[in-house]
Amino acid sequence: MSSSQIYLGVVGVGGVGTAFLGQLSRLPNPPSLVLLARTTQTLTSGTGYSPAIAASDWQSALSSPAVTTSGAITPPKIVSYLQAAPGHSILVDNTSDPSLASAYPLFLRAGISIVTPNKKAFSSDLSLWKDIFSAAASGSALVYHESTVGAGLPVVSTLRDLVATGDQVTRIEGVFSGTLSFLFNTFAPAAGSVSSSAQWSEVVARAKQLGYTEPDPRDDLNGMDVARKLTILARIAGLDVESPDSFPVESLIPAELASLPTTREGIDQFMARLPDFDTQMSAVKEKAEKSGKVVRYVGRVDVVTKQVSVGLQSIDGDSAIARLKGSDNIISFYTKRYGDRPMIIQGAGAGADVTAMGVTADLIKVMERLK
Amino acid sequence: MSSSQIYLGVVGVGGVGTAFLGQLSRLPNPPSLVLLARTTQTLTSGTGYSPAIAASDWQSALSSPAVTTSGAITPPKIVSYLQAAPGHSILVDNTSDPSLASAYPLFLRAGISIVTPNKKAFSSDLSLWKDIFSAAASGSALVYHESTVGAGLPVVSTLRDLVATGDQVTRIEGVFSGTLSFLFNTFAPAAGSVSSSAQWSEVVARAKQLGYTEPDPRDDLNGMDVARKLTILARIAGLDVESPDSFPVESLIPAELASLPTTREGIDQFMARLPDFDTQMSAVKEKAEKSGKVVRYVGRVDVVTKQVSVGLQSIDGDSAIARLKGSDNIISFYTKRYGDRPMIIQGAGAGADVTAMGVTADLIKVMERLK
Repeated sequence: MSSSQIYLGVVGVGGVGTAFLGQLSRLPNPPSLVLLARTTQTLTSGTGYSPAIAASDWQSALSSPAVTTSGAITPPKIVSYLQAAPGHSILVDNTSDPSLASAYPLFLRAGISIVTPNKKAFSSDLSLWKDIFSAAASGSALVYHESTVGAGLPVVSTLRDLVATGDQVTRIEGVFSGTLSFLFNTFAPAAGSVSSSAQWSEVVARAKQLGYTEPDPRDDLNGMDVARKLTILARIAGLDVESPDSFPVESLIPAELASLPTTREGIDQFMARLPDFDTQMSAVKEKAEKSGKVVRYVGRVDVVTKQVSVGLQSIDGDSAIARLKGSDNIISFYTKRYGDRPMIIQGAGAGADVTAMGVTADLIKVMERLK
Repeated sequence: MSSSQIYLGVVGVGGVGTAFLGQLSRLPNPPSLVLLARTTQTLTSGTGYSPAIAASDWQSALSSPAVTTSGAITPPKIVSYLQAAPGHSILVDNTSDPSLASAYPLFLRAGISIVTPNKKAFSSDLSLWKDIFSAAASGSALVYHESTVGAGLPVVSTLRDLVATGDQVTRIEGVFSGTLSFLFNTFAPAAGSVSSSAQWSEVVARAKQLGYTEPDPRDDLNGMDVARKLTILARIAGLDVESPDSFPVESLIPAELASLPTTREGIDQFMARLPDFDTQMSAVKEKAEKSGKVVRYVGRVDVVTKQVSVGLQSIDGDSAIARLKGSDNIISFYTKRYGDRPMIIQGAGAGADVTAMGVTADLIKVMERLK
C-alpha cells in the first residue's frame, strides 16, 4: 500500500516504548517512522521524510549524535513536522506525560491521529476529554487508546462496541491494577489457596523488590491509577465524570504517612514506617474472612446511579474477583443484553509487552481506517 | 457522512436477523438498507437504490406483497444488485446457509464487503477459507465475522490482534457451546454449588424444553458446532485445518442412536431412548468427581503441536471452566506474551441480541474503514 504511505511519530522509549518499537519493526506493512523522541533527544528522518528511521535499529540511531537533536521537542513542533508529511500521519505517545497529552486536540485538529497508552489525556479534566473527541469528530484524524485500561486486554474496544451497538451498560466492576491485584491476592488469598501469614508491609516490600510496584509504591497505593482507569470507562459509558478526584477513592496510604516527602528518603521512611499499620490491615483481612470473604481493591462504575467508587471491598471467596491470581486484572461488564451474568475479561493488565500489544493493535486499526 | 453513502443488503430475518435489524434501526448514522431477503421473499428499495428500506419497519414492508418479489434470490443476483449501487456496499448474512456462504468470494471480488455470524464459510473446506481471504486481500472489500465464535464476545477480534501484533499463540481452550455449557453446568456442577441428582437425559430434556438446544438436540450433542468454532480459531492462529471433520470430535450421541432419522419422529425416538444411556453418563461424571474434578465439554487448539480436539474432559473443580454458570462460554488464550496465565474472555456465547451485537459492531467497523 505504498500509494498511501502513513507517517509515524513516536514519543517515549521506556519499557512500553521499547516493546512497541520491537513490535513495529516486525509488522509486515509498517508505517514510515519519521520521528522518534525521548526527553533528552529527538531523531527525525531526512529531508522529504525519507529514509524512514529503522525501528529495529533505533537504539544505535539515538546513540549517534550526528542524526539527533538534543533536548526535548515541544508538542507544537511535533505537530508541524508530522502535519507537513506527504500523507496521513499518526502520533504514538508512549509516555505518561500530561503536557503532551494536553496537546492532543492540537494534533487532531491538524489531522494527525493519536494512538496511546497514556491515561492522562482521557482521565484529567472533562474539558480535555471533550476537546479531544470533538477535535477528532470534526476532522479525519482518529484517537485510539486501548492500553489506557487493562493494557492489551480488549476493555476499551469492547465497552465502545457495547455502547455503539445500543446496549445499556448498567455496571462495570473489577480489579484494575496489576500491582494491587498482586498485593491482595498474596496478602489475602481466596479460601482453598495456600493461606498467607505474611504481614501487609512484607507483601508491599516484596512487590517493590520484584519491581511490581512503581518506584514509589505510594503511586500504586493511593489508588489514583485505578481512579484514572475508572474515569475513562465511566466516560465511555456516558457519565460526565469531572476528574478522577470527583468521586471517592480509598487511599491505602495511612493518613499518618501522607505528608512524607516524595523523595528517595520519603520512600524509605514510608517503607520503614508501614509495619506500624500491619495490625490495621490484618484486622480488615480477618473481618472479611470471618464472613467467608476476602478483601480486594475494587473499582466500580454504577452507570444507573451515576456513581463511581474505588476502594477496599469484602468479596465472596468463590467469586471470580476473589480467585484472581498473580497480578491479573478482571473487568466485568453488566449490560441489559448480557443480563444477570456479566461479560468478563481477565488477564495480565500490566507489563511492557502486553501494553505495547494494545498500542500496536490500535495502530494497525488506525492505519486500516486511514488507507 | 452522506458524501460516502454505504449500501446494505441483509439476508435472514430469524432471531439474529430480527435483533440485528432492531439494532440497525437505532444506529445514529446507519447505512442505506437497499435489500432485505428471506427464503421466501426479497424486498429491494426503489429504482436508483432510493428510498432505503426502513429497518424499523421491515416487518410491515415484507408483509406488503406490492413491494416484494416472491421466492429466494440467488447469490449472483444479490451480487449484481449490490455491485451496481452508487457507493460501497456490504452484505450482512444472518443465515446459516452454506450456499450463500460459498458465494462470499464472488461478493468480495465484486467489491462487496461481508459481515456475518454464519460459521459455514469459515469452517468448511480450507479451500473456501483461502478463497475468501485471498478475494478480500486482492481488493478493497472486507470480511468481518466476530459472531461466528462466542457470539458478541470479543474472541475473533482479540485473536486476530494477538496474531497481527506478533504474539505467539500457543494454546486456545474453553467451552464454546452455550448449550453444552448449560448441560454440563447443570448435570455436573462444580463442588460448592448445589449438587445435582438429575439424570443426563432429564437435563437434556429440560434444556430442550427451555429452548436452549437446537430443535433437534442432536445438532448440539454431535459436537459439530464446537468443531466449526475451533476450526475458525485454529485457522486464524495459523493452522491449516482442512475441515471440522479432520480432527477428533467426541459426539455425545450414543452410537446405538446414531442411525435414527432426522425427522420429527427421529427426534422423539432419540429423546425417548436417551434415558437408556444415563448410567454411562453418570459413570463418567462420578469418575471425574472421585478425583475432585468435574466433566465438561471442552474444545482445544494446541498451536504448537498443531492438534485440535473437541470432547469430554475432567476438569479441576476450582478452575474457571469448572465454575462456569448458566450457558456461558469461556475462552482462554495462552500466548508467549501473556505467559503462564491466559487471557480469558467469558460470558453469554449465544442468544439473538448478543449475537446481533457482534454483527452490528462489525458493521460499524467495516463502515468506518470504507469511509
